[in-house]
Amino acid sequence: MHGTETRKLPGFVGGTIDRVDHIRTNPALLASAFVDPAARLLLLDGLDPVEADGHLVLEPLAADAQVEDHLLLGIDTGNRPIFARLVADLGPNLVPTPRSRAIADLVPAEEVALYGAARSLVHWHARHPFCSVCGGATAPAKAGWARKCGNCGSEHFPRTDPVVIMLAEHRGRILVGRQHSWAPGRYSALAGFVEPGETIEEAVARELFEEAGVRVRDVRYVMSQPWPFPSSLMIACIGQAEDDALTLDQTEIEDAFWCDADGVRAALAGDPDAPFSAPPPMAVAWHLLDRWLAVAGPTLVPSGASA
Amino acid sequence: MHGTETRKLPGFVGGTIDRVDHIRTNPALLASAFVDPAARLLLLDGLDPVEADGHLVLEPLAADAQVEDHLLLGIDTGNRPIFARLVADLGPNLVPTPRSRAIADLVPAEEVALYGAARSLVHWHARHPFCSVCGGATAPAKAGWARKCGNCGSEHFPRTDPVVIMLAEHRGRILVGRQHSWAPGRYSALAGFVEPGETIEEAVARELFEEAGVRVRDVRYVMSQPWPFPSSLMIACIGQAEDDALTLDQTEIEDAFWCDADGVRAALAGDPDAPFSAPPPMAVAWHLLDRWLAVAGPTLVPSGASA
Ligand SMILES: [Zn+2]
Ligand SMILES: [Zn+2]
Repeated sequence: MHGTETRKLPGFVGGTIDRVDHIRTNPALLASAFVDPAARLLLLDGLDPVEADGHLVLEPLAADAQVEDHLLLGIDTGNRPIFARLVADLGPNLVPTPRSRAIADLVPAEEVALYGAARSLVHWHARHPFCSVCGGATAPAKAGWARKCGNCGSEHFPRTDPVVIMLAEHRGRILVGRQHSWAPGRYSALAGFVEPGETIEEAVARELFEEAGVRVRDVRYVMSQPWPFPSSLMIACIGQAEDDALTLDQTEIEDAFWCDADGVRAALAGDPDAPFSAPPPMAVAWHLLDRWLAVAGPTLVPSGASA
Repeated sequence: MHGTETRKLPGFVGGTIDRVDHIRTNPALLASAFVDPAARLLLLDGLDPVEADGHLVLEPLAADAQVEDHLLLGIDTGNRPIFARLVADLGPNLVPTPRSRAIADLVPAEEVALYGAARSLVHWHARHPFCSVCGGATAPAKAGWARKCGNCGSEHFPRTDPVVIMLAEHRGRILVGRQHSWAPGRYSALAGFVEPGETIEEAVARELFEEAGVRVRDVRYVMSQPWPFPSSLMIACIGQAEDDALTLDQTEIEDAFWCDADGVRAALAGDPDAPFSAPPPMAVAWHLLDRWLAVAGPTLVPSGASA
């Protein structure tokens, strides 16, 4: 299973656009980018991606388009300024559709990443027409990378919410769990938001204890992934469990169990006899399980010592 | 310099409070905690800490105190529910004072962490009396871990803003820079907010290129720190620079230079002849420099090979 072949990246990872921070705050440069004949609009259907022939659809900007209504995503590798349109009213339904997740298998990684950035930002604008400080109306600023209040002058910036997603490891087995709403058989790494006042490692330990009653030490960072539903930064970690007793928080977790390397290998391979159904490779959890198999599992405990 | 002695933690790291997530959403349990004779109020002066005899000041809750105006920070190791008061109007001045930073040297690490969590949350409430979706009035919910809009019903959650702070390494030297506003001689690791749609590693590479013109690969995570001014999660990393040419963004960075291990060692020791003045140990940058000296520097390039 674990050769040296190039693996698919997690979804939304691998963006190649130049975010051109210096243009965002320079109205003259921004205006030039907007009237550049090479400029393109990343088409969205609400918050959903629009794909054709294996690529995201990019269109010339409309003749009557106003720069104030647009977000500058950046300059692509073809030297084209890429914009997205900020929509005042997206309606009440901002939840992810199957289409918005399926895009990861339809277009190249750098386009998935571009869509992820656009989706998070367009969603954030749609949720922030008003100022949280004074209740006044806000308007886009800094090429769509901020909003400014017309009443009190407060600046507001897009959110990025750090989330820890983690495996506890104990004697060659790792902990996977499932939420009540998931499809039958699906298990994955446990996860939760990092809270104010804690480190990544502290958040990992807190969540594993809250959700599964497992105490961990030696938490190691593995990888990260932007997850634009709506604006998470997934931070994938592995920690060493002190023992394998489980006390589940049944409001959060329907079930959880310790799985050995053979079981994880079967799950990632999509084997119908695997002890659980793994999330797809667009999810960082797939890669966390894969990394555990490839590196940590065999290194820390020889397979066969897990029983 | 680098023995095995126990090092001071970065400021705001090392919290020991039990955040008791299950109490936040259970009004009966919350009410019990609030009337517990052991319950204490963490006293704040605006956003500033209040210290006496080497500890944060904790007081019994006032007889007329209302649970709705309070944030439940958690249950401390002495089994006391610890609350902070949510103040409707903190005034316009929410910027960090010298006093709020000095607390890291005055009280034990777990109390610094408790203050950090309280400060971030009290600040967030003060900036969010109104709903960003509809402009309606919001009120605290979930024991102070959310606000809810009385008009449209939207829930809002405290922010935690991930920030990358990083060293570029090139042939035994690392890059330090300074901002225009810093005290003379002070240099530190470069830093910047993680943006929607990028990984931690991508943010590190983008920021180093934007601010210093340096391209890095092989970005490694080192450690993290909550930084409550107002609500950052500092994510400290080291990346390998492709070369040592610098192109500074002078709007962000006043100066930057490559420093060898001897120079970093002198700076961390507070040597007046050091090539720069390092940030204090409460800052994660101090620990990042220290970790580079202790692990990465000597491992990757023997000292002496840096010239
Ligand atoms: Zn305002
Ligand atoms: Zn509302």
